[in-house]
Amino acid sequence: MRTDLNADLAESFGRWELGDDATLLTVVTSANVACGFHAGDPGAIRRACERAATLGVAIGAQVGYRDLAGFGRRFIDVAPAELTDDVLYQIGALAGFARVAGSEVRYVKPHGALYNAIVHHSEQAAAVVDAVVRYDSGLVALGLPGSEWLRMAENAGLRVCREAFADRAYTPEATLVSRRELGSVLHDPEYIAQRCVRMVRGEPIEAVDGSRIRVEADSICVHGDTPDAAAVAQAVRNRLIDEGALLVPFTGDT
Amino acid sequence: MRTDLNADLAESFGRWELGDDATLLTVVTSANVACGFHAGDPGAIRRACERAATLGVAIGAQVGYRDLAGFGRRFIDVAPAELTDDVLYQIGALAGFARVAGSEVRYVKPHGALYNAIVHHSEQAAAVVDAVVRYDSGLVALGLPGSEWLRMAENAGLRVCREAFADRAYTPEATLVSRRELGSVLHDPEYIAQRCVRMVRGEPIEAVDGSRIRVEADSICVHGDTPDAAAVAQAVRNRLIDEGALLVPFTGDT
Amino acid sequence: MRTDLNADLAESFGRWELGDDATLLTVVTSANVACGFHAGDPGAIRRACERAATLGVAIGAQVGYRDLAGFGRRFIDVAPAELTDDVLYQIGALAGFARVAGSEVRYVKPHGALYNAIVHHSEQAAAVVDAVVRYDSGLVALGLPGSEWLRMAENAGLRVCREAFADRAYTPEATLVSRRELGSVLHDPEYIAQRCVRMVRGEPIEAVDGSRIRVEADSICVHGDTPDAAAVAQAVRNRLIDEGALLVPFTGDT
Amino acid sequence: MRTDLNADLAESFGRWELGDDATLLTVVTSANVACGFHAGDPGAIRRACERAATLGVAIGAQVGYRDLAGFGRRFIDVAPAELTDDVLYQIGALAGFARVAGSEVRYVKPHGALYNAIVHHSEQAAAVVDAVVRYDSGLVALGLPGSEWLRMAENAGLRVCREAFADRAYTPEATLVSRRELGSVLHDPEYIAQRCVRMVRGEPIEAVDGSRIRVEADSICVHGDTPDAAAVAQAVRNRLIDEGALLVPFTGDT
Repeated sequence: MRTDLNADLAESFGRWELGDDATLLTVVTSANVACGFHAGDPGAIRRACERAATLGVAIGAQVGYRDLAGFGRRFIDVAPAELTDDVLYQIGALAGFARVAGSEVRYVKPHGALYNAIVHHSEQAAAVVDAVVRYDSGLVALGLPGSEWLRMAENAGLRVCREAFADRAYTPEATLVSRRELGSVLHDPEYIAQRCVRMVRGEPIEAVDGSRIRVEADSICVHGDTPDAAAVAQAVRNRLIDEGALLVPFTGDT
Repeated sequence: MRTDLNADLAESFGRWELGDDATLLTVVTSANVACGFHAGDPGAIRRACERAATLGVAIGAQVGYRDLAGFGRRFIDVAPAELTDDVLYQIGALAGFARVAGSEVRYVKPHGALYNAIVHHSEQAAAVVDAVVRYDSGLVALGLPGSEWLRMAENAGLRVCREAFADRAYTPEATLVSRRELGSVLHDPEYIAQRCVRMVRGEPIEAVDGSRIRVEADSICVHGDTPDAAAVAQAVRNRLIDEGALLVPFTGDT
Repeated sequence: MRTDLNADLAESFGRWELGDDATLLTVVTSANVACGFHAGDPGAIRRACERAATLGVAIGAQVGYRDLAGFGRRFIDVAPAELTDDVLYQIGALAGFARVAGSEVRYVKPHGALYNAIVHHSEQAAAVVDAVVRYDSGLVALGLPGSEWLRMAENAGLRVCREAFADRAYTPEATLVSRRELGSVLHDPEYIAQRCVRMVRGEPIEAVDGSRIRVEADSICVHGDTPDAAAVAQAVRNRLIDEGALLVPFTGDT
Repeated sequence: MRTDLNADLAESFGRWELGDDATLLTVVTSANVACGFHAGDPGAIRRACERAATLGVAIGAQVGYRDLAGFGRRFIDVAPAELTDDVLYQIGALAGFARVAGSEVRYVKPHGALYNAIVHHSEQAAAVVDAVVRYDSGLVALGLPGSEWLRMAENAGLRVCREAFADRAYTPEATLVSRRELGSVLHDPEYIAQRCVRMVRGEPIEAVDGSRIRVEADSICVHGDTPDAAAVAQAVRNRLIDEGALLVPFTGDT
């Protein structure tokens, strides 16, 4: 029984602080570090990389659209060739800090609207895959099971990692319930933690309609952008360890 | 008789084109590639790196203040620790493209107001040096002879490269005539080219008052942001070659 | 025989110059002044407003998505309420310069991807209309005949102005030939000028397949972002005047 | 006994929230609304203007350097003419929202590093004054007593308003103790409130060394960017009202 916990980090920007990076980095095994396009000033990125390196947390590039005002949450119809360049820029910028921290970028997880777009948007998915392959074909692609992004990454020879969400409700078809629907986000730490244990064990979990579904995942995404969320993340980690799960980066030991 | 020619590249941004990169890259041996903070969108950076790699031109990081609106030409009183992070971010971003192009970042040349500030501003000079040393102590520091930047870089164990300016008038003390003064910029390609030959030979050149001065330089900076400037750069290159100079990157062969 | 000529102005940004504003302002009767989100630094905006005011050229707000890197040419799926705020911000910023120049904002013309989006995208079209109505219901809406933007603006009680394009080919259905198709942009100044005369006279013009179509327009859009384009714009103006057309802002005399 | 309370508002940006605007707007009589250059997305600006208008709070333009990454807290050596344009742009943008909210911009208060710079920097002070005068000479200049900004504003015919700081320690010379020194910021709500009462009454207050000084002020600046600060602001308001002070905007009733 072995899994990985990943979370978004370094999403502050200058005077604006967001998320409790210090706490989250004691919880997760993989850190999706923002790269400056949707969030993440250079200082926040450096600190996240330094702490991740010290704690043995794997560093991933959380690449997004160039959209500070929208926090990368708005689809942008950027041409694929430009998207490839934008992703390369972000991976490189992060890689510099990872290197200085004595670590390296191990994986790529698109953020926000880009994450959602490349579930279906083949051209943009291919553009992100292209950037990753050209930068380093040893990088792992982290994302949604069944997405174009993971399918194309696999076809391109990349290792892929499928993630589940600790605090999101699932439909009977094992897809995410839209954030616009009531009950899409779970809040009870105990329930969430128990559900994560079941997922890691390969046991069925409860969908939003009460039916039982199986969610296969190599990593579980937790959140830390509110005090409640950080507490949930800690509860998930503690429960997994109590149940005997081994928490190691999906990319392998750092 | 051996020297290097360097010029600023990749200073376009999105729809806005600046400089004739394609021509300049056939002229210079070292390319100061903008890194996105004062100029340089990811596509422009990628193209400059690809062409530089193909042509055997050395790639340097032209790092600047975060100031697209001011093109990096306005002093910003950024705290040294933040400046170090800003420089690390820029070097890393460029290094990604250099890597993908099959090359690497070989040196760092600060841009615009940062270039001018760290002639005297010890804290900011130290901050840039700190970034370079932490990123890769094999990088070379390119800048103004006598500047804090080069002095501190040398003290920190970096190799340094002193540059002269092909088209700028010098004072009798061998410093640059301020751009605000008449006659600060030279325009006659033949005169400029001949002067460059003298500098490379180690012969004295004429200062703005007609006196003779010696300008010691390991590289000569040419410009390409106007059609005239590109023509001057080509004249300098041609004359140097005609006179038997060997043009090689100051960082060593790529 | 009376018409208006409009063109995009103030699309420089800091060091990056674009378009020959000085020439264009002697050609057009209505100036679509960029407002800083896709292009247009405050100095460029001020200068365009000052010259427009001096020359009796009407000032319009050329509002766009917040996207300097993409020059506003990439669709952004911004939420309608945010788009309304973005448009209000831009109109207000421009209005300050118009006021200082002794003039005022008279109309609104969306730019680039926003222009194209609100031909069909009802929510974004409604968001832009909402901003205009809330700012000043005396403003005129300038755009594509048949677009949601003009339809909704009219429904909201705004005066609308339909524009035709001087140098763009039309389909047999009187819509624009996509820029991606060969022959979508016309280049012969004489042909373009003659065609504009026919449009202003209400006579049919030639579609891309040689068929005859009628394009009803209250204003003709000319371009000035290349030397060729500025020459075409001047040719159009001269021919229209030679043929006896009265060139006045569609918003009425300023 | 009559005074004004002012505070910085609308300093959020997109996903990043800062300050408790809703509470502060029930405390102050004058709102320094950020204008988008150092902070303040269009939605935050609109909401602040709407609430201010509803509550009869005067709206002022909190103009700053173009520096989101630095929150306007880093001096930028921007040329005076460009600074004038930047300030005009910001006032105009805010004025649009004030207008839509049924109010108007009544005063200008520079922010952060610009505030500090124009205490002494004559060229930049003159540039800001120039912008205000050109926009509307009926606007009031709010700032530090003895600053170049207020001196030049007065010379240019603007009404000025001198402010004191509720929670900042003063030197024996009645200037602010630098934030870098221990004890520069006061924290005890009761002490702060009592001190404000003394200032409004024209009575001497205690300087950092225990000596007694007089601080003449037409408005008192309170802060709201932390929960503690908002509580202090409320304590100041309540105490002033308890002591019989009349709280009205320094610009006159709105």
